[in-house]
Amino acid sequence: METIIKQLEKVKLRKPILVEGLPGIGNVGRVAAGYLVSEMKMKKFAELYSPHFLPLVIIHDDSVSHVLKNEFYYCKSKNRDIIILTGDTQSISPEGHYEICEKILAFAQKLGVSDIITLGGFAEGRVVEEPRVIGSVNDKKLLKIYEKYGIDFGKEHSIGTIVGASGLLLGLGKLYNIDGVCLMGETIGLPLVTDPKAADKVLQVLAKILGIKVDLSRLEKTIKEMEERIKKTDKIHKKILQEMPKPKEDIRYIG
Amino acid sequence: METIIKQLEKVKLRKPILVEGLPGIGNVGRVAAGYLVSEMKMKKFAELYSPHFLPLVIIHDDSVSHVLKNEFYYCKSKNRDIIILTGDTQSISPEGHYEICEKILAFAQKLGVSDIITLGGFAEGRVVEEPRVIGSVNDKKLLKIYEKYGIDFGKEHSIGTIVGASGLLLGLGKLYNIDGVCLMGETIGLPLVTDPKAADKVLQVLAKILGIKVDLSRLEKTIKEMEERIKKTDKIHKKILQEMPKPKEDIRYIG
Amino acid sequence: METIIKQLEKVKLRKPILVEGLPGIGNVGRVAAGYLVSEMKMKKFAELYSPHFLPLVIIHDDSVSHVLKNEFYYCKSKNRDIIILTGDTQSISPEGHYEICEKILAFAQKLGVSDIITLGGFAEGRVVEEPRVIGSVNDKKLLKIYEKYGIDFGKEHSIGTIVGASGLLLGLGKLYNIDGVCLMGETIGLPLVTDPKAADKVLQVLAKILGIKVDLSRLEKTIKEMEERIKKTDKIHKKILQEMPKPKEDIRYIG
Amino acid sequence: METIIKQLEKVKLRKPILVEGLPGIGNVGRVAAGYLVSEMKMKKFAELYSPHFLPLVIIHDDSVSHVLKNEFYYCKSKNRDIIILTGDTQSISPEGHYEICEKILAFAQKLGVSDIITLGGFAEGRVVEEPRVIGSVNDKKLLKIYEKYGIDFGKEHSIGTIVGASGLLLGLGKLYNIDGVCLMGETIGLPLVTDPKAADKVLQVLAKILGIKVDLSRLEKTIKEMEERIKKTDKIHKKILQEMPKPKEDIRYIG
Repeated sequence: METIIKQLEKVKLRKPILVEGLPGIGNVGRVAAGYLVSEMKMKKFAELYSPHFLPLVIIHDDSVSHVLKNEFYYCKSKNRDIIILTGDTQSISPEGHYEICEKILAFAQKLGVSDIITLGGFAEGRVVEEPRVIGSVNDKKLLKIYEKYGIDFGKEHSIGTIVGASGLLLGLGKLYNIDGVCLMGETIGLPLVTDPKAADKVLQVLAKILGIKVDLSRLEKTIKEMEERIKKTDKIHKKILQEMPKPKEDIRYIG
Repeated sequence: METIIKQLEKVKLRKPILVEGLPGIGNVGRVAAGYLVSEMKMKKFAELYSPHFLPLVIIHDDSVSHVLKNEFYYCKSKNRDIIILTGDTQSISPEGHYEICEKILAFAQKLGVSDIITLGGFAEGRVVEEPRVIGSVNDKKLLKIYEKYGIDFGKEHSIGTIVGASGLLLGLGKLYNIDGVCLMGETIGLPLVTDPKAADKVLQVLAKILGIKVDLSRLEKTIKEMEERIKKTDKIHKKILQEMPKPKEDIRYIG
Repeated sequence: METIIKQLEKVKLRKPILVEGLPGIGNVGRVAAGYLVSEMKMKKFAELYSPHFLPLVIIHDDSVSHVLKNEFYYCKSKNRDIIILTGDTQSISPEGHYEICEKILAFAQKLGVSDIITLGGFAEGRVVEEPRVIGSVNDKKLLKIYEKYGIDFGKEHSIGTIVGASGLLLGLGKLYNIDGVCLMGETIGLPLVTDPKAADKVLQVLAKILGIKVDLSRLEKTIKEMEERIKKTDKIHKKILQEMPKPKEDIRYIG
Repeated sequence: METIIKQLEKVKLRKPILVEGLPGIGNVGRVAAGYLVSEMKMKKFAELYSPHFLPLVIIHDDSVSHVLKNEFYYCKSKNRDIIILTGDTQSISPEGHYEICEKILAFAQKLGVSDIITLGGFAEGRVVEEPRVIGSVNDKKLLKIYEKYGIDFGKEHSIGTIVGASGLLLGLGKLYNIDGVCLMGETIGLPLVTDPKAADKVLQVLAKILGIKVDLSRLEKTIKEMEERIKKTDKIHKKILQEMPKPKEDIRYIG
């Protein structure tokens, strides 16, 4: 099985910009993307399924279950239409990250996307009073465009890498001639702990870039509502290791 | 090598329903499926082989060995014909689960299957005096259909995910327009311990759904007879780790 | 890259029988196969390369290195021609075992092979004074044919599985309509320790089956000569783990 | 996604020889190759991307990020033109090493390459006062050609294997009729510690073979300048393990 993107609705978008917010450090990207989807009343138009996700379904409170997936939402906007990519999970294998990001980029290209904004958290390893939004771009020319939005472009921190979709969509995006910027909200970086403050800062910058108005007053409340489902997903991995009859070890040997 | 399904006999089935019972928590699914196959005198008509199973053969008491496989059985029934999928093992890799489930779903679709029932155990982590049968569906409309059979649809428990074939056949089944319900018998959830009580409860519900009569009085006896072979399979993994010169470890799980 | 078999010489073989002896428990299979190749002055006619072997070359004493491989040898014989498959290693991944065995079986079928004999060790976990040769077949009808050769078919031992090529060539061989028997010499089963006694017993049975005469008096001496190279291969895995700058862990995460 | 080589410039090379220097023990190969690229003012003409690299981008000091890659450089030279292959990383999976090396060899063959020189370090496990350059070839006939350059061909050391690209390009190169020699500078073999002395010795031998003059006086200074970026790459793995919510482990190695 290959990673597949199932389009639910044919859409015609004007100069669309793709914003990615998937689970990661502090859940910053996922929470920010989820809040936008809800505040902008965006509409889902495509779903992504992958054999590189954990092989399981999540059961909702109404006893209906669905297999892990990523989702594409869109809305019309004044200047440019907006696509948001969010979802339950990221690849659990390195190769899977590459395959999934390639599928996303090919799909984005088909939709006419020429710009990507990826959202994430940057683990500081300590409590951050006033989280900055740290940025990285996949082309030097973009620094000029983005530095007016209050993004911190690498003067006072020593971040070295971006792992997963937020990084690869930038790096591989270059091969698709898609410009990319990654916005990372500073956060303590504890596993399984959502950081609303960092998400708030990222959303402020993002709204400025997209030229939209977002009422952030409901963010903390929305996050609390999302927490239940987020926790379910976050606990999946731990659960698997505990619940499973007998974690299978891989057989590798030189005999 | 890809996962392959080798059809041994051409069958023509009337509105067939597929019941999956593979090894997992408490061996509930496998034991229930195996008992049905034996009691209903079902006939094997297809076998599934996969590179995502452990690379080994099981030696039977008569010194004849066979490679790990899953098996499809069928029988004619009053209202709808029944297909049962059972076997030695599940995938040992996450990607493998997806590939195998896709092959099963494509095969089921070819046979005209529009409904799947997957069987499993739900690990309570404690001794369960009166095991319930907990359910999940892949479409809301199914709740109405199935709630009359005494299935517990999520009121008093907090199950969050279903791992492996029992989950994926539901989740991916949705993409094939196949309706699915998962029946999970509550069990203590000890590794390598078969739970006849949970299997009994699952079989009672299943018989009602399928509209068949199954004499469950021989279940405990049959399980004892199956134990020998089940133990062989269950011990495979431990044996491998001991016999092999130096295996490296990787965390895999079977749901 | 896929597993490939590179044929070095076109051969025309009469009713050929394939004998597999690759590294494994006690190095029984590999040593027995290697001794036969040398005593029968067999000729190499094909090589197998696979991405499922460790990614390394072995350096010989003359500073010439070669990538890990398996090798096919043949010789003409009175009744039926003999093919021997031996080599440096087996697959390091479960999926790889399946792929490699499939390639071997397809190649064997092309050469007209209808019978396979796989050789291995059976780890008893204790010193064995008089090692038996334990057998398993992939079809019941073969018991009659092979039980006259002094093979122990499962009465007094409790072996349950055969892992790797010796098992899969039997199990998957069935799908190719190739009859197979596995001969396992009882051995203590210590990692990295070659057992000449078990290899001797296996060779005695094998010679009877093949209807050839093999002078086994040079076996211990030959094994000593092979030891040097065997040790190099056996130590590969340990070396890798020690020498490598930084064993890389796999990144898997649910973020 | 497959490993891809993206050619940036069409080149016509005269009897080109390919020199590989990727990260590995003591960073010997990478540092030597990097110094040659800089001293010879070589020009980049192709890039290699692979799903078998870690799924991340490296952020440079100017906040521009790029996805992990290998790079091909060339320069014209008196006798034969020179291609250098260097880069950020090697495959993190065994299968990936095979795939990547095959792509490199097919690309080299297309460019008319008939000889490969691979560079690496040989971990002695102790401080080496006067590091030797130890060699291995993929064909006996090459010993005569290379033994005049002061390479130590296996008399006084007990090296047994070469892991990763430096080994596989030799071993698989044989299948492409490409002659290969591996030059390994003796080094202590500490993880993440670059050894300029070993690189110096390897460069001396390499310059003689290539018939070029290289001023090695700037080597230590250049290495210091490279250190910053090298460290960033070297620290990637550690960072990943710390930052990620909960990675599972698998043993991988880079040779």
